[in-house]
Amino acid sequence: MTFPLNDPMASLEVDADRLWSRHMEMARIGAIADEGVCRLAMSKEDSQARELLATWCRDAGLEIHIDRSGNMFAVRPGTEPGRAVIASGSHLDTQPHGGRFDGVSGVLAALEVVETLNDGGVQTAAPIAVVNWTNEEGVRYAPGLLGSAWYAGLIDDERLAGVRAADGTLFVDEARERGWLGEHPGKFEMGAFVELHIEQGPVLEREGRQVGIVTSVQGLKWLDVDVTGMDAHAGTTPLDQRQDALLASARMLVALNEAGRRCGPAARVSVGRLRTATDGPSTIVGHASFVIDIRHPDVAMLASLSEECAAICRDIGTASDCAVRVDERISVPPVDFDTHCVDMLERGAIDRGYAYRRMTSGALHDAANVARVAPTAMLFVPCRDGISHNVNEYAAPEDLAAGANVLLNALYKLAI
Amino acid sequence: MTFPLNDPMASLEVDADRLWSRHMEMARIGAIADEGVCRLAMSKEDSQARELLATWCRDAGLEIHIDRSGNMFAVRPGTEPGRAVIASGSHLDTQPHGGRFDGVSGVLAALEVVETLNDGGVQTAAPIAVVNWTNEEGVRYAPGLLGSAWYAGLIDDERLAGVRAADGTLFVDEARERGWLGEHPGKFEMGAFVELHIEQGPVLEREGRQVGIVTSVQGLKWLDVDVTGMDAHAGTTPLDQRQDALLASARMLVALNEAGRRCGPAARVSVGRLRTATDGPSTIVGHASFVIDIRHPDVAMLASLSEECAAICRDIGTASDCAVRVDERISVPPVDFDTHCVDMLERGAIDRGYAYRRMTSGALHDAANVARVAPTAMLFVPCRDGISHNVNEYAAPEDLAAGANVLLNALYKLAI
Repeated sequence: MTFPLNDPMASLEVDADRLWSRHMEMARIGAIADEGVCRLAMSKEDSQARELLATWCRDAGLEIHIDRSGNMFAVRPGTEPGRAVIASGSHLDTQPHGGRFDGVSGVLAALEVVETLNDGGVQTAAPIAVVNWTNEEGVRYAPGLLGSAWYAGLIDDERLAGVRAADGTLFVDEARERGWLGEHPGKFEMGAFVELHIEQGPVLEREGRQVGIVTSVQGLKWLDVDVTGMDAHAGTTPLDQRQDALLASARMLVALNEAGRRCGPAARVSVGRLRTATDGPSTIVGHASFVIDIRHPDVAMLASLSEECAAICRDIGTASDCAVRVDERISVPPVDFDTHCVDMLERGAIDRGYAYRRMTSGALHDAANVARVAPTAMLFVPCRDGISHNVNEYAAPEDLAAGANVLLNALYKLAI
Repeated sequence: MTFPLNDPMASLEVDADRLWSRHMEMARIGAIADEGVCRLAMSKEDSQARELLATWCRDAGLEIHIDRSGNMFAVRPGTEPGRAVIASGSHLDTQPHGGRFDGVSGVLAALEVVETLNDGGVQTAAPIAVVNWTNEEGVRYAPGLLGSAWYAGLIDDERLAGVRAADGTLFVDEARERGWLGEHPGKFEMGAFVELHIEQGPVLEREGRQVGIVTSVQGLKWLDVDVTGMDAHAGTTPLDQRQDALLASARMLVALNEAGRRCGPAARVSVGRLRTATDGPSTIVGHASFVIDIRHPDVAMLASLSEECAAICRDIGTASDCAVRVDERISVPPVDFDTHCVDMLERGAIDRGYAYRRMTSGALHDAANVARVAPTAMLFVPCRDGISHNVNEYAAPEDLAAGANVLLNALYKLAI
């Protein structure tokens, strides 16, 4: 470790055991088979998780505020009046077959930082807040990232009031009933926000690094591709007289992957949904459709890659004697994180002596919303085999502690 | 037309209007929207169609026999005792959204031949029979081609007695109840069998030919291919660190099609069913499966093409970092039709002056079963756009008449 003289961080370290045991205690709420967790936003389980977090926060001396979208802010006071809160956190809700780390780790790391500061008797000029954003996963209530979107002004009060589950339940009704619709009059102003999250990808693990310093969140486009050929009999129709929509789609998938690779290591081009109108082994498919998920951290590269993907589908469609329609369904611009926040995280990784790298987030996170209204950055910890949204999701105790130590250094630097 | 001197066929021709009007009358039984037909084997509608056929046959002086699988044989006596029956026909049952010609045309053409012989006062030495095979389509009762399979000894009495619909109904019970389980003591011996059918493919139409002389039925293999990679997040997982089972499958589909094309115009390689274990646009597919339908008229070529297809899947699986399993699910050997029957059909096409070609049947037909126990051949008539198993199935009156005229000549030659 390389700390400046008189830096209280030199003698301070998070309690790895406490951090891990809190993960395990939280994972009991909504536990499902194979160490999985099901804790849908504003469900009974989510409400229990919020209660447990609130108890821990109150025990650590924090004051809890709830805003009108259910976001929780647990604040440790600063010494200098008027300083905006330095915040950190993530989300406690999970996927239906989720794991013990996605979201939770970011909330518990922020709590661990506060408790470590408490344990060391370290004061900060600015207040520090532990944040739990509402409904990141968007399983029962769409859209996902709901709390941070409302916080960042991307969703207004009227739209929030209309958010419903498939069964007709209004989000605000369920939140009020469970006691999580707050009366906080406005939006909690932040001087900075830093979110720790599991990587949900394989890069850190494969490169043997404990920490990823996230400089940006990729932009995303979804293209709906619709391919129309002609149903025909697999036995009677010669290969050169077919309008095979599935074969045309297969050619497109291969070419789309090649286009993504040509675009460099930051590009992502994926097809995870492909459907055919017929399902008979002896029937040539006359209609197929798929969705292209395209991502890139650079807005211009994202646009040109998306155009190239659309052109590939149209050209292959023509060459395969099929009609093709391409429609853009979703377009989310890339987000660049705040340079100072990124530097503070990197400083923390260097001071602590962890192997780290700068990287782009391939997944969307609450921090991407918050970045629109406050200086923001993220840090990643490795997760085994890059697996998430899965009961097998796993992050090692020592990696979680390493991430929390980097977060400790960064929040301290931002708050003094 | 070029007929030998004193050939009664020189002055005989089928009645195209009668043939067409019988198609239209038969199509009213089980009629569905858009000129479609739903007449599942042994349903009320199939039974009505059989009644109508029986009435027409009795009116034409034929004697009707039903065998123990419900096959109908309507026999016109010959003049020479002891000669085996020369038979022709197809099936009256249809797909659930079938058309007016698949199967029906072969039965009605045979009836039309008999009536034309009656009209011309032409006797034959051998008897001639109009045949309706039971349950060719195999929709409600599996397997398809049931009646001809039992006739050819491919299914024994015990297996026939166990054939059930999905709702538990026994085939033999329903056939008995509707009055179509015959008491014919054995199997009706045939001297030859010739089946007219719509092509169900585009070749004759595209080449402007009215008749196809079918020399063989392709062999068929189905390979089940199972591709296992790893589910992963489309945003976070770099393109070079994926085990994308859908992308690997797409590469296989493209290469399989190329292998089929390399194998020459008689080869068919098709994938009509492809399924993925996940269906999220942002989830890289960790498991995909598909069925390869491989056909070729030559048994050795079929075997080597099938082996090449399996090797392609294994190699691409390895190159794509996915595990691949290939299992042969179905293997039906090719059938070569009887040279003499084929020659008689070709002679008929030449004598009548129709544009024709020899060809292989890409689809399975009852004739392929019958060929195991009697000299057999088939002839095809064009169908619009190659479409069948579809309410839009269409064959032109003049093409149906041309096919029936060729059948007339062939049956006459085989029966004198």
